[in-house]
Order: sequence, then C-alpha cells, then structure tokens
Amino acid sequence: MDNFVQYAPTEVVFGKGTEKQAGSEVKKWGGSRVLIVYGGGSVIKSGVLDRVKRSLDEEDIVYDEIGGVKPNPRLALAEEGVKKAIEFQADFILGVGGGSVIDTAKGIAHGTANPTLDLWEIWTGKIPLTKSIPVGVVLTIAAAGSEMSDSAVLTNEEVGRKVGISTPFNRVKFAVMNPELAFTVPKKQIACGVTDIMMHTMERYFIPGFTCEMTDEIAEGLLRTVMRNGTKALENQEDYDVMAEIMWCSSLSHNDLTSCGRGKDFSVHKMGQALGAKYDITHGETLSVLWGSWARFQYDTAPDRFARYAVNVMGISSQGKSQMEIAKEGIEKTEEYFQSLGMPISLSELGIHPSDEEIHDLAMNATQQDTLKLSRLKPLSAAEVETIYKMA
Amino acid sequence: MDNFVQYAPTEVVFGKGTEKQAGSEVKKWGGSRVLIVYGGGSVIKSGVLDRVKRSLDEEDIVYDEIGGVKPNPRLALAEEGVKKAIEFQADFILGVGGGSVIDTAKGIAHGTANPTLDLWEIWTGKIPLTKSIPVGVVLTIAAAGSEMSDSAVLTNEEVGRKVGISTPFNRVKFAVMNPELAFTVPKKQIACGVTDIMMHTMERYFIPGFTCEMTDEIAEGLLRTVMRNGTKALENQEDYDVMAEIMWCSSLSHNDLTSCGRGKDFSVHKMGQALGAKYDITHGETLSVLWGSWARFQYDTAPDRFARYAVNVMGISSQGKSQMEIAKEGIEKTEEYFQSLGMPISLSELGIHPSDEEIHDLAMNATQQDTLKLSRLKPLSAAEVETIYKMA
Repeated sequence: MDNFVQYAPTEVVFGKGTEKQAGSEVKKWGGSRVLIVYGGGSVIKSGVLDRVKRSLDEEDIVYDEIGGVKPNPRLALAEEGVKKAIEFQADFILGVGGGSVIDTAKGIAHGTANPTLDLWEIWTGKIPLTKSIPVGVVLTIAAAGSEMSDSAVLTNEEVGRKVGISTPFNRVKFAVMNPELAFTVPKKQIACGVTDIMMHTMERYFIPGFTCEMTDEIAEGLLRTVMRNGTKALENQEDYDVMAEIMWCSSLSHNDLTSCGRGKDFSVHKMGQALGAKYDITHGETLSVLWGSWARFQYDTAPDRFARYAVNVMGISSQGKSQMEIAKEGIEKTEEYFQSLGMPISLSELGIHPSDEEIHDLAMNATQQDTLKLSRLKPLSAAEVETIYKMA
Repeated sequence: MDNFVQYAPTEVVFGKGTEKQAGSEVKKWGGSRVLIVYGGGSVIKSGVLDRVKRSLDEEDIVYDEIGGVKPNPRLALAEEGVKKAIEFQADFILGVGGGSVIDTAKGIAHGTANPTLDLWEIWTGKIPLTKSIPVGVVLTIAAAGSEMSDSAVLTNEEVGRKVGISTPFNRVKFAVMNPELAFTVPKKQIACGVTDIMMHTMERYFIPGFTCEMTDEIAEGLLRTVMRNGTKALENQEDYDVMAEIMWCSSLSHNDLTSCGRGKDFSVHKMGQALGAKYDITHGETLSVLWGSWARFQYDTAPDRFARYAVNVMGISSQGKSQMEIAKEGIEKTEEYFQSLGMPISLSELGIHPSDEEIHDLAMNATQQDTLKLSRLKPLSAAEVETIYKMA
C-alpha cells in the first residue's frame, strides 16, 4: 500500500426533502450573503431553486444569483460570476445543479477571494491558489462527483482549452443531495453520469504496483452498484432507491476513497478533455468513446489487474482462459455495457472523423504540448495518445 | 435508503514514517501549545514518542505530557489531563496510542474548553457540549476506530459506569497512521482490535428495513478484508500490507461510511460496556463473548439479512438450505472465526459466572435502568438483555 492522504471534509446531507436544509447549512458554515449559481431552466421549472431560496429566506440570508451554466462550463461565465459576487459582497457561493454548476461555483469562489488575480492564471497553475471563500452545493444530477472532489474543470473558449485544477480549496463545505431532484434529468444525462462515475473509479483502480485490498473492495463494489443501478435507472428513473445508489456512488467515486494507497492518473479524462474542448461533445461521451481504446492499448502491461476487474466487476468466468483472454473479455463487456446505456464507443458514431493533423493537435493539447506523460501504466506521450485517438 | 448525514472531516495521513509529520500537522491545524497523551511504556520503548516530540520541536511547538492511560480509560485520568492542559495553557491535544488514548484525549479537549463544567455531566449528556479544542492523533494500534469516529468512551470508576458520548466535537483534526507502529502490539490486542473493527461494521450492517447496496458492498468488503488480514497478522504481524489493511479498516469501520442510509444501533457495544465496567475485561472480549448470543436471539427477526451476511461475508454456500439455516451457519462460522483468533465466545471461558442478581444489574446498567431499548431488530429491554447475558 502506497502512502496516502485522505481528506474529504464535506458534510453530506443526503435524502428526501434535504434541499430545504440549504439555508440552515449555509448559516452553519458561516454564510450570510450568498451568490446562487445554476444552469438552465430545469431548476426553475422543477421548483427546486424556489425551495432553496425559501430556505435561505427563513434563515434571513440574502442572495443574488447567476444562471446560464452549460456543460463544459466556461471560464467567461465564472469570471462574470466573480464580478457579481464581488459587487454583491458575497461571502458564500451556493451551486444548485450538477458538476458544471459546482465547478463554476468553485471557480467563482476562488476568483472572489482573489479579486486582483487573473482566474485563468490561477486555474492553469501559474499563480498558486492560497485562499478561497466557502462553497455549498445542492446536487441535482449524479455524475461528476464534484460535490466531494478536490477538482474542478473550466473551459477557456478563447484559447480552446479545458483545464482541471486540484486543490483542497475545491472541497465544498456541504453537499445537500436529494435523489428525487434527479428524477427529471434526461436519460442521456443519466447515462453520461453513470459513465463518468465508472471512470472516476477506474482511473484509480487501474494503477498497478500496490496491494490495496480494502480500496479494491470499495472500487469493485462501487462499479457493480453503479452499473446495476444505471441499467435500472434507464428503465425507471423515478425509483428512489435506484437514484439514491447512483447519487451516493457519484460522491464516493470522486472523494478519493477509491485511490487510498493506490493513487490515480486520470489519463482517459485528460484525453477526453482535449476532445471536449475541441468538439463540444459531453464529458461522458468523451470517456465512453476513449476508454476501450485506452484499455486495449494498456491491458498487456497489467493483465492481472484487468483480469481481476473482468472477474470481480464484469462477472466474467475465468475458467480455462488465460489472463490476457479474461482481460480482453472484460474490456469488450464494458464497451457492451456502455452501448446498453446508449453511450458511443467510437468517435465515428458521433459523426466525428478527425484528420491526422487534428489528431496531432488533440494529442498535443492532452499532453500539454508533449510535456506531460499520461497514465501510470504505459506512459502516454503525445505519440501514444495519437494512437489511442486513432483507435477510437 | 434512509436519509443520512455523513461527515468525516478528519485528515488521514497514512503510511510509513508518517509520525514524523505530527509536528507539521499540529501546526497546520493551529496548535502551538500541545498536551501529549499516551498510555504505557510501549510508545517510549519503541521510540515513537521521541520521534513525535522531535517533529514538534522542529516546528517550534511547545508541549507538556500525560501518560498512564489504560484500557477502559478512566474519567479520573482525563480529569487530571484537563488540569494539566489548563495549567499549561494547551491549545491542542495530541494522542499517541490506540483507542483508549484517543478517547482520553477527546475527553481532555472537551474538559479544557469548558473549565467551569463537570466533565462527567458533559459525558452523560446532562450538560450539552458546545465547544472543544482541537485534537490530533498518532495511531499505534488498529482497533477502536476512534481516530475517525464521533464517539469516545470513558469509565467512571466511582460509579462503576462506562459511558460513550457521540458529538461532532469528537472528530479529530488529523490522524497520522503508520502501520509499522503496530508491528510490536501484542497478538492478543490485534485479535481484540479485529473483533472491534468487525463489530463496528456489524452494528451498522444488521439494521433492517432499508435498501443500501453501496453501503452493504463497503461493509461486506470491509468484513472480508479485516478477517482475512486478521488471520494473517497473527501469523506475521510485521507484514506491512497486512497491518495497513487492518489499520485502514479500523478507520473506515467507524467513520460512519458503513451506516450511510442504514443507521447503527451499537446494542452489542452497549451490553459489552456494562460487562467491561464491572469485570474489567477488554473491550474486544466483551464483544466476542456477547455477539453470538445476541445474533442467536435476533436472527429470526431478519433471516434474510443474516443469510446475506453468511453468504457474502462468511462464504457459506446457500444451496439447498433455508434462509434460517444459512443464517445460523453464518453465526456459527463467525464464532469459529473469533475462536481462531483466540477470542472467547462465552463468559465462562473468562472464568466469569455471574449470579442472577449480577446479571440483572448488568442488564439495568446496559439499558440505563431499563429506560433504553437497545437494537433496531427485536427491541432489547432489560429483560431481553438479561436473556442474552445468560446465553453468553
């Protein structure tokens, strides 16, 4: 087991009707002037935004708001939020939505606490982040796990780059999670969410070289649970227990519980982010499109690990097969699972046929101009990443 | 899934050599004047106390110390610690040891922050606890899980009562965990620790009435992992990975991760605490002695749950058997496991043969004079608790 630090201080308030506790939670965590961040009209239509506002009113908390967050959230909107938060003298940012909203809320918090600094320079690590203001979350979609993670991703449209930042300041104070709020999420988004949750777990699980029995038990249990319930949710997304499992898995997949003693590399995420920045396809799609090709490129480096996954997660029988055969079957069955959710497993399914030059650009972007080696299996420089994009 | 709050803010610093980070951790969490709390001579003999002190020196943190904490830690020593901490003007309490040391450190912190209040009145809930001072931990024994839990137990010898208190103020700021420090722990203590870890998990697992797939996956994975590694540790306790699994399981068993959506009742603990207060047998022994009788008394209320445990944790084949048969087999095999660790499964093995009157007193103590109903399976009043004690 490798040395590790595990720090997941977010207070999770989970269950039916919990969005009504948003106000008391904000108060508990020291907020008195709140900027509410949300996405499109769904939180208005569903009434959840109103319920959250009422709960703030009940605690005599004043608020302003900014809506319009879109998938692959934009730096520009976060910067607009920073301006608004500073004008309003906000001391707390409250995100009401899914991963894009939460990441935007985190960006606004960092920018508000550092009004003289350039947010993109903070985001890209040129200026170190040393303070922020508190963030709380009312989660409406189970997917990104941002409600408990130390990471956030924004896209700078001007330079065409999607960049993630990891910092303890990205841990939100509280996350209110009512699975009922996800009953009305479009099926496509549920499928993307399940894919993302799986990927957060697998980008930690496929780190070789350590014995981590408890961490593996959690990861394998999480993958089985989210896959089983993902299938059920597409049949009936108003089953509370089903949505509750997916929502809880989303948080546990990304609060680092499944990397304890093993680590993480997020190589598929990084390749996916380059795709997402260029083509504006959803985050989940970039992952399901790339994972199979990534896995086929990698599995001979750690066939035991891929075979264990195949048996313990995908339920493949090992009888009379070599490790390599079992591993390969596990990859195929995972792609079949993605397809059963309606997720693409190749770029061409999305009508995307990048030229060699475009693929080269994508690979350079994913590897920060070939300076970064992705993955802790075979190291992936730009050349290897190009191969994987071509396979996809 | 039942509504729940999950809040485990402790920063875990896990791995080889991490005790050298105690000083920087204390500083990070705001400590400058530290009272160190420890038990017997083992932390002196092993050199860990010296290493911790050196790391405090390196950060220019001053400290005083109090040793002598024993199993079933005493209120009196905690009160002595409070006096010392106040005299020293300590702003941070650092426990170096196992569960008894940590619980004492928590008690000292609460007493120090409330110098005009009676600690036992706080402990027994007569006075609400509204503040404390920060506590950090250098863990040397994997067992109690107190390093991440919201609970702590002290024994008041004057009145012969062992009482636990649960409060968010019991969450320590950081827990430094180096499995190597547990290499020299007596085998008996390792066995007791494994039993305690199992029990923390089972006192949450055997709550009926909710569907909690992810929580069950974690609980079952934890039980399998700690049992497998418990057996290995008794063969070779200097195997780093083995001790690391047990130590990590100890924290995860008691940070409420395994009660999310299900809850907990701690009925065996409460019965065991009454035993521990009267006979001064170790905490782990009280649990292994009572669990089988508790389970036999309870399993017909939720045979499905006990049968699931038998199959998924104890590896019992379900073929051709009724749920009740499978459940019973699971209980038997669990007792066999305790015996394989050298743990007692009856009071008589410990030479304890309480009279009917003594059993009545124990039951009254465990149920707070028959005012408390233990367990969320069959409710256990004093009469039922008497029956279980007699069975044991």
